[in-house]
Amino acid sequence: MNKVIVLCKRPVGKPALDDFKTNIEDVPSADDGEVLLKTTYVSVDPYLRGRMNDSESYIPPFELDKPIQSGIIAEVIDSNNTRFKVGDFVLGNLFWKEYQVSDGKDLRVIPKDPAYLTAYLGVLGMTGLTAYLGLTEIGLPKPGKTLVVSGAAGAVGSIVGQVGKLLGCKVIGLTGSDEKVHLLTSKFHFDAAINYKTAADLSGAIKAACPDGVDIYFDNVGGKISDDVLNNINKHARIPLCGAISLYNDADPVLGPYIQPVLVKKSALIQGFIVGDFADQFAEATKQLTSWLMDGKLTYHETIYEGFDRIPQAFLGLFDGSNEGKMIVKI
Amino acid sequence: MNKVIVLCKRPVGKPALDDFKTNIEDVPSADDGEVLLKTTYVSVDPYLRGRMNDSESYIPPFELDKPIQSGIIAEVIDSNNTRFKVGDFVLGNLFWKEYQVSDGKDLRVIPKDPAYLTAYLGVLGMTGLTAYLGLTEIGLPKPGKTLVVSGAAGAVGSIVGQVGKLLGCKVIGLTGSDEKVHLLTSKFHFDAAINYKTAADLSGAIKAACPDGVDIYFDNVGGKISDDVLNNINKHARIPLCGAISLYNDADPVLGPYIQPVLVKKSALIQGFIVGDFADQFAEATKQLTSWLMDGKLTYHETIYEGFDRIPQAFLGLFDGSNEGKMIVKI
Repeated sequence: MNKVIVLCKRPVGKPALDDFKTNIEDVPSADDGEVLLKTTYVSVDPYLRGRMNDSESYIPPFELDKPIQSGIIAEVIDSNNTRFKVGDFVLGNLFWKEYQVSDGKDLRVIPKDPAYLTAYLGVLGMTGLTAYLGLTEIGLPKPGKTLVVSGAAGAVGSIVGQVGKLLGCKVIGLTGSDEKVHLLTSKFHFDAAINYKTAADLSGAIKAACPDGVDIYFDNVGGKISDDVLNNINKHARIPLCGAISLYNDADPVLGPYIQPVLVKKSALIQGFIVGDFADQFAEATKQLTSWLMDGKLTYHETIYEGFDRIPQAFLGLFDGSNEGKMIVKI
Repeated sequence: MNKVIVLCKRPVGKPALDDFKTNIEDVPSADDGEVLLKTTYVSVDPYLRGRMNDSESYIPPFELDKPIQSGIIAEVIDSNNTRFKVGDFVLGNLFWKEYQVSDGKDLRVIPKDPAYLTAYLGVLGMTGLTAYLGLTEIGLPKPGKTLVVSGAAGAVGSIVGQVGKLLGCKVIGLTGSDEKVHLLTSKFHFDAAINYKTAADLSGAIKAACPDGVDIYFDNVGGKISDDVLNNINKHARIPLCGAISLYNDADPVLGPYIQPVLVKKSALIQGFIVGDFADQFAEATKQLTSWLMDGKLTYHETIYEGFDRIPQAFLGLFDGSNEGKMIVKI
């Protein structure tokens, strides 16, 4: 008995549980050169929403009635591939299946240390690299600069803020609950955080928190929140644009004021990116993140749902802000 | 008798003739260290619109009932400054006055050659530097890339397109009349040009003209036209954002679809700039532009209004697309 979660219809607007369906298949067996994997931890990430649309993006759309794919940690339970032995834990872009086989080409064996196993889906994985490289390569942080982060309590945002602090910036986070405000300032060392849902005047609150203006804006959300940050940017502001989660679930394009005038006025730069744009720098960045993590200078938070069947629910939770830090499903 | 044009009220929306007033003053005389200047050519430029608002920008707003300032070529008619002699032509950011004195600090003597005198307000001045440096420093043109230019028949756009061709790009211009479409392809060597006012489906027309997609978009206009270009950008597109003339005259912010999703999807870069951001490179850029101009590889077009009193009218004409190339008033 092998459960497999497929996309059974394309979400229109906000995804719902009935966009997903669980099929039952046989547990496959490993052919020559293959390994049989048992899924242990599943990463759910906002970018998956884009792959659920039938439109061109930086990666092809998911196919209907085919299993969804995301970052997964799995245990090798049978191996006909000399690179892997039974009991190894591997990281890969794998399917939402309890069991699956792989030729091992895109799998990486990760240390078995249970204290850090899930870190490879977060701070030591794509999430950490996205945060670190987006901030350092596009934002160009320097001591004394003011950095604002939206989606600050999310997987990427919470690392961006800490890296900003480690590099000498003043860091202000924008987030969606008072609990998260507390988390940002107490656990992640942000200088200040603002609950954008309860701020009567978000632009004014950002101004008050950033008396010297905003030099770097690491944007995970887009939309109205970003307009309020743009009201406060300094000359030559730099804006790494990592995502636009506030806009992903709208069937029709959301309208807002054109941002070209403020970009001209401030000689500001916005650069959209995905982590793959900086593949040349993965090794060096991973080394830096690992070193900070081991030295206790970088911490991370996870929201862990339990049970294979709850993967879709965990994914939907990303759009309600149900997660603090990295959203992961433990199988 | 010395005519002086002042801003008598701040335009709301589109500027009108009655926002300007002509005062009569005495002709001043040059004190020690000063020169007396007679205005010869006045440059009117879209960016002046921003200075007419009472809001912070990259340069302070014009003051009410004070003369307006822009790029001007003037003749020295009296000099108590050893750097200048009577009969010299100088270039400076001067007032809309028939006669004025200056301490000479920000004035530059330019060659008297009548064939190129006005070029110092255009292709060999701020306009040419804006076009050349915005394109080369932000757009990073390379042979074989597809470059789209909006406001293509304007002072900056017509130079951007020619520089793009000289650097090996395929160049497509967006402009507002069939006469300008003809001008772009016949005189300025654009590969193709599109009349955005008559195109039934501008996005589709851009797609047809750019079968390999848009690699660089030199944006002078912002707004809806830019949305249609963004529909067609390639992965890693680069967008030097020089101006947003389509949005300058709206009293309330104009709404359009948020552009963050497409920027993320395409890992695209937008960078607002003013020419002063690249001041370090003025000398080298001027040398390159002069060399191309003298070799006949670069050409320019001017729309010249005559008469001091017509300066405001020439300025208003910028927003109607009345100019082809650089708009200048000859006194």
